[in-house]
Amino acid sequence: MGHVPGGGREYARLLAENERYTEAFDRSALTAAPLSGLAIVACMDARLDVEEALGLRTGDAHIIRNAGGLATDDVIRSLIVSQQLLGTNEVVVIQHTGCGLHGADEDALRDSLGASVGVDAGEIRVDFGSFADLQANLLAQVAVLREHPLLLDVPVHGLIFDVATGRLHEVDRA
Amino acid sequence: MGHVPGGGREYARLLAENERYTEAFDRSALTAAPLSGLAIVACMDARLDVEEALGLRTGDAHIIRNAGGLATDDVIRSLIVSQQLLGTNEVVVIQHTGCGLHGADEDALRDSLGASVGVDAGEIRVDFGSFADLQANLLAQVAVLREHPLLLDVPVHGLIFDVATGRLHEVDRA
Repeated sequence: MGHVPGGGREYARLLAENERYTEAFDRSALTAAPLSGLAIVACMDARLDVEEALGLRTGDAHIIRNAGGLATDDVIRSLIVSQQLLGTNEVVVIQHTGCGLHGADEDALRDSLGASVGVDAGEIRVDFGSFADLQANLLAQVAVLREHPLLLDVPVHGLIFDVATGRLHEVDRA
Repeated sequence: MGHVPGGGREYARLLAENERYTEAFDRSALTAAPLSGLAIVACMDARLDVEEALGLRTGDAHIIRNAGGLATDDVIRSLIVSQQLLGTNEVVVIQHTGCGLHGADEDALRDSLGASVGVDAGEIRVDFGSFADLQANLLAQVAVLREHPLLLDVPVHGLIFDVATGRLHEVDRA
């Protein structure tokens, strides 16, 4: 299978944009430890600009993102590193309205994925992380992080980002 | 174990910043599908503002981040969702200088984590993702994404972000 056509132009733009970025880059003495002590766990959604929506500046916070903003094993790993090596002591979980995983059909996705990449759908063992209720899903992720035996007992907050208004709604405040 | 003291003030600031953000929020008709077709996989590091460093605007790209910018199973899951449900067709992997996982000692981290959370270190099965060579580590992640049977055969680029200059260095261009 060859590359999907059309790639490359956007990538080239990134490099040009980065050239401009370096000209204004503040060579301050930021260290790896986030200044705010915050670790943010959020969905990968393109409409959620985490730094902008939260007023975070470069150096402020760890930002961990995946499809859905789910408290997966990889997020646990990342938070352990964040807390143990780099001293963060507060977590904010952000999910959002209009998420592609909200109400997604796992079986249908498995079928279309299999057809797309040429793999028998029955051999695909991936759980894609779909969910039926946004608020319940967010609360479940917050609970996982609060109760995990390898994470510090720090405040964990749950917020829903409204992609239509840019507003964060508090669902579960530590 | 009670909450680590000091949390809360930074969280309150986020909500105030978001209030300002909503006032200027562009209620445009952005949909969940990223406009650029790009999915970015990057480290969670606080000094790497992915949108700013790449000139990405709200709605442009999926942004997936974890400790190290590693091609974990959760990143594969997220990229499947990104490609199959939301049509992205190009991947950029970004690791960076000064990463906390570069040269980290897994056994020492396991010991300090165990002592910190009150769990016997011998029972901690987490692989934290430490690595010895930044460029080799980046190339390995790019290779995983290029060769994964459940991902589309799309361009995958590898970049290193220099936290001292803000510059992205091309290591592996698709």
